[in-house]
Amino acid sequence: MPLWKMYHTAGTLNDEHKAELAERITKMAYPILPVFYVGVVFEEIKESDFYIGGKPAERFVRIWVDHIARTLPTPEHRLRWLGMAREALEPMFSKLGIRWEMHVDETTRELWLIQGLVPPMQNTEAEAKWKTDNEPSPY
Amino acid sequence: MPLWKMYHTAGTLNDEHKAELAERITKMAYPILPVFYVGVVFEEIKESDFYIGGKPAERFVRIWVDHIARTLPTPEHRLRWLGMAREALEPMFSKLGIRWEMHVDETTRELWLIQGLVPPMQNTEAEAKWKTDNEPSPY
Amino acid sequence: MPLWKMYHTAGTLNDEHKAELAERITKMAYPILPVFYVGVVFEEIKESDFYIGGKPAERFVRIWVDHIARTLPTPEHRLRWLGMAREALEPMFSKLGIRWEMHVDETTRELWLIQGLVPPMQNTEAEAKWKTDNEPSPY
Repeated sequence: MPLWKMYHTAGTLNDEHKAELAERITKMAYPILPVFYVGVVFEEIKESDFYIGGKPAERFVRIWVDHIARTLPTPEHRLRWLGMAREALEPMFSKLGIRWEMHVDETTRELWLIQGLVPPMQNTEAEAKWKTDNEPSPY
Repeated sequence: MPLWKMYHTAGTLNDEHKAELAERITKMAYPILPVFYVGVVFEEIKESDFYIGGKPAERFVRIWVDHIARTLPTPEHRLRWLGMAREALEPMFSKLGIRWEMHVDETTRELWLIQGLVPPMQNTEAEAKWKTDNEPSPY
Repeated sequence: MPLWKMYHTAGTLNDEHKAELAERITKMAYPILPVFYVGVVFEEIKESDFYIGGKPAERFVRIWVDHIARTLPTPEHRLRWLGMAREALEPMFSKLGIRWEMHVDETTRELWLIQGLVPPMQNTEAEAKWKTDNEPSPY
């Protein structure tokens, strides 16, 4: 459900960084979801294709995220979740001297399919089973 | 208007599959729209850039869609449309042993341009002309 | 905050065109924002990966934009802003014989971070400082 897309400048993140980030995001930002809901896609963008403020980006990661399975209903929930996302990202980005920006959109869970199935509502037995099995099944 | 973006793992979809999918999506999921409204973009993502559940994705297609020209106003409309999308995708994905997930966002038609023109409102004469001509024109 | 993603067919935009477009978009469509808020990412999509109306796209640019820092609250604001975006794009696209489509989504500023910071509210002293400095700082 959450789909993270991470555009990064060339030479900024190597394969080990990416594997570690994907794992941290999955565990730290989405502890209650079925693990297989979390998708993370990296894309290296070359200098002549990536502009911040009208100038070529340098050591930059621009992240956009879609949330589907859960919405963050109050300002307090939103701030708390941003803190979790920051925790997942900032130690590595800070160590590597990377500048970054992220934003999240929330889309409706009523237009969502996994393997052709409408995923179960949150906090249901069916969702708990998907989480335990770590795969979708008819319910 | 609908823009489909399909991220797929390497070696999962070849050019013939893509052409067939683009045609099926256009015809089966959007029978009433001007044909040229439908955009489909495929992108191969290499293993070290694509994670599901914190692990490298395998034979996976992650689809995200933006809908603009039409919204699906009721749960019944949404379920019916998901069935049309499933019909367009599932026979091929099932035959090829592909796991997949898709989600759709609905965005406002008031922030939309084709060739610099604000597209005509739905079910108008102007829209019917765009559909018949299969190209935009001032109205 | 605004993130522009521009998918273009091969051979349609060269590096000079891209640099010029990024600068025009930044200046003409977002004159009041801190300049570093504006991100523009280009991506060349090869013919077998890019379909419009079920057929391979030709000399086409498909643009999708996320707006975060500001929403356009009325139909008048939206039309006026579309005019600004059109001005930034159309002279070049028209000269180069490019067909194009764009759409904009508006997402919440409450799920947005720059360098780990929640950006200041619009029309505040803190935002004015970010604009003058052209970089984020704690406030």
